[in-house]
Amino acid sequence: MTTSSPNLSRIGLAGLAVMGQNLAFNIAEKGFPISVYNRTTSKVDETVKRAKQEGNLPLFGFHDPESFVNSIQKPRVIIMLVKAGAPVDQTIKTLSVYMEKGDCIIDGGNEWYENTERREKAMTELGLLYLGMGVSGGEEGARHGPSMMPGGSFEAYTYIEDILLKVAAQVPDSGPCVTYIGKGGSGNFVKMVHNGIEYGDMQLIAEAYDVLKSVGKLSNEELQRVFSEWNKGELLSFLIEITTDIFGIKDDKGDGYLVDKVLDKTGMKGTGKWTVQQAADLSVAAPTIASSLDARFLSGLKEERVEAAKVFESGGFSDILTDQVVDKEKLIDDVRQALYASKICSYAQGMNLIRAKSIEQGWDLKLGELARIWKGGCIIRAVFLDRIKKAYDRNPDLANLLVDPEFAKEIIERQSAWRRVVCLAINSGISTPSMSASLAYFDTYRRDRLSANLVQAQRDYFGAHTYERTDIPGSFHTEWFKIAKQSKI
Amino acid sequence: MTTSSPNLSRIGLAGLAVMGQNLAFNIAEKGFPISVYNRTTSKVDETVKRAKQEGNLPLFGFHDPESFVNSIQKPRVIIMLVKAGAPVDQTIKTLSVYMEKGDCIIDGGNEWYENTERREKAMTELGLLYLGMGVSGGEEGARHGPSMMPGGSFEAYTYIEDILLKVAAQVPDSGPCVTYIGKGGSGNFVKMVHNGIEYGDMQLIAEAYDVLKSVGKLSNEELQRVFSEWNKGELLSFLIEITTDIFGIKDDKGDGYLVDKVLDKTGMKGTGKWTVQQAADLSVAAPTIASSLDARFLSGLKEERVEAAKVFESGGFSDILTDQVVDKEKLIDDVRQALYASKICSYAQGMNLIRAKSIEQGWDLKLGELARIWKGGCIIRAVFLDRIKKAYDRNPDLANLLVDPEFAKEIIERQSAWRRVVCLAINSGISTPSMSASLAYFDTYRRDRLSANLVQAQRDYFGAHTYERTDIPGSFHTEWFKIAKQSKI
Repeated sequence: MTTSSPNLSRIGLAGLAVMGQNLAFNIAEKGFPISVYNRTTSKVDETVKRAKQEGNLPLFGFHDPESFVNSIQKPRVIIMLVKAGAPVDQTIKTLSVYMEKGDCIIDGGNEWYENTERREKAMTELGLLYLGMGVSGGEEGARHGPSMMPGGSFEAYTYIEDILLKVAAQVPDSGPCVTYIGKGGSGNFVKMVHNGIEYGDMQLIAEAYDVLKSVGKLSNEELQRVFSEWNKGELLSFLIEITTDIFGIKDDKGDGYLVDKVLDKTGMKGTGKWTVQQAADLSVAAPTIASSLDARFLSGLKEERVEAAKVFESGGFSDILTDQVVDKEKLIDDVRQALYASKICSYAQGMNLIRAKSIEQGWDLKLGELARIWKGGCIIRAVFLDRIKKAYDRNPDLANLLVDPEFAKEIIERQSAWRRVVCLAINSGISTPSMSASLAYFDTYRRDRLSANLVQAQRDYFGAHTYERTDIPGSFHTEWFKIAKQSKI
Repeated sequence: MTTSSPNLSRIGLAGLAVMGQNLAFNIAEKGFPISVYNRTTSKVDETVKRAKQEGNLPLFGFHDPESFVNSIQKPRVIIMLVKAGAPVDQTIKTLSVYMEKGDCIIDGGNEWYENTERREKAMTELGLLYLGMGVSGGEEGARHGPSMMPGGSFEAYTYIEDILLKVAAQVPDSGPCVTYIGKGGSGNFVKMVHNGIEYGDMQLIAEAYDVLKSVGKLSNEELQRVFSEWNKGELLSFLIEITTDIFGIKDDKGDGYLVDKVLDKTGMKGTGKWTVQQAADLSVAAPTIASSLDARFLSGLKEERVEAAKVFESGGFSDILTDQVVDKEKLIDDVRQALYASKICSYAQGMNLIRAKSIEQGWDLKLGELARIWKGGCIIRAVFLDRIKKAYDRNPDLANLLVDPEFAKEIIERQSAWRRVVCLAINSGISTPSMSASLAYFDTYRRDRLSANLVQAQRDYFGAHTYERTDIPGSFHTEWFKIAKQSKI
């Protein structure tokens, strides 16, 4: 023990990387005495020191798990912020031996939801409670108010509801960005989809940037002005805000702007991949999110792309195919509309993915509530989420955000600009995979008759998979091959 | 026992649904005496009767598993053609008790490759050999020559290589459509990706159909002529051939053509889904295949689409947005080129997915050989596959089919038509998700500089994920928020 609390702490936190430290400070700052622990003990000392510097926060550090656990009032609640996977199991093992019936462990990491369910089951056998709680907002969010998605034991949630309500981001008129999500791994699942949506948002912004920069020839100064302007309207959001900032930052290692020196290779951590895999599993089309994941994969093939660019250069391909003169103001306005319309599609996919899983698992998730707690604190926070909340308030059983009267109206108003931007990109050869996937999603969803009849006819032709008819109920099979053969004779 | 063989059979087959029956007849017809078994014994009698009718084939039926197994010469080889999953385990259990060391079971179904690896391990413990063998070609293929992808025990493969070489489809100048794929579940994996590619091909054809029918206003007679013409050139393939047939078939339950009465709802069986999930797992972009899966998902939401069509009708959306007059001949030629170029992208994705898995698993798969055995027998058989084989013959380490000199040239020649078709579809509101995803794939892959720098800057901004630079090696982190804040003061 490096420092001791005269009284017991209200809560404990294990895992003192930046996210963990910041969340601990946030909790302490809200007046809840907190004990902290980390396997590498120097982190503990560092955290205690920082807590003193930041205003003598009621934070107490421990070097060994036993005294850490014993320093917390019962029923004990300990939040873990360690790497998903094996480290979580290890931390549970270390702590649970000192915990008692009715105590609770909360995993605040980006964990695969089934791992949480497995652990909850194991904990139940020990008489312990368990929560898997998605925490979004990055380092800043953790420190000053994240969006939190706790799922699992409702009893455990009630132990710390008062803490979570104060620690969460606060949004005027809609309250703290936290709510009990549902049973089992629902908190992790919802956070996973949140991250998938985040991938989509980031890619859509990158495509808007690409069109404006590559076709519109906007400078970083102009881009900053545009994004700053966008951040006053329907696109107002954290990601647009930080993008505005990014365009303004000069390179401290050379001339020009830093963004131009950043390598075009994007990393990822797994939640986007899981989202896409879950969408496939649940038969939910999520092309905006999937294409944003693909864009990250292709960005990673930098060396291959450099080689490919050389191959096609010889065929007359420059980076940009045409050097057409565009009306900048008109282009900026078109791109804003395309971005917004694509965003509606992306959120429609994410929300429907959550609903499909909720039905499969019997989680009874409330989509409007999720939109509410994403309004602040998290990476995808945006004024837009209030519109989504209202859409589900109007109709909790809404089949798809696209057909909500308000969103439908917005899409109708923006569809011409949307089509112009995607076609301009295609003709310029710059590709807007997520904007065009969003548009294809919309145009597929809004058509009562698709060309899927041909695919089903093919399936029946070669695999006798049968088909339904438009005019007569039932299941049919035709001997296409035989009939075609006869007619050829 | 219903019929008995005076001598022992060369091979056995269990599971007498249509595929199983047809494969058994094919084997018997090639002169290999075969024993057959099915749990529901009436199927056995039916098969024996059919074998007599089809020319007194050397096929022997058994009602109980023990006499079935004992009727086969050692080392015994039994092919199972039962439903993937539990039925396979059940059949193995039933048969293996009567089998002896060195005997072999082959699963000819569309099984998840890890199940095959699990079973191979369990069989090895019993001293038995195991193969997971993808069989493509549908009922007709099984009967007259499928494409077969056996993976697992090489020793087991040598037992029946002579049979497989005769049973497989025979392609002039490139031999029988079978080869030993590799170890473990590689045969199933390759078949899975084959099916994913098949999804892509079918969707691309459906989009070509949609553009020609909805925008070009081609009648079924015209469509049949176009597809028949296409089937004489670069698009020559089984799927184009059967599509030609489909357009010619009249509705026997009413007026007009049958294809127009088929409901636009497409079923699926799992391999397409697995392909998309594996692509995400292996960080391989496969947007053409993924979008074809999404198209099936969205086709399934018929009732929702009918409602959505009503919602947008009020905003002026008819099914087709514009009634522009198009030059039919020019359109047909453009669509052919768009279809072909998109197809290259789709196969590039599938092949790279197989390679990524081969590296992960140490399977050492030969991509050119796979293209060769797909040239005949299977659903995706096409003259096009010979070009792929040649590309890998030229360069077995080809990073992507797109940069093979021949394919690159073909794409360059077709890119204008490709862009015209996708933009025409977008402006008509009909959506060509897989064609546009293919084009975005190409335009992303061929660019040495993408807008991924912005995404990576965002990630570093909110999550301190670091970034690389274009000019200096190493990993960098910038305090974007602090710098932006300072500059605002």
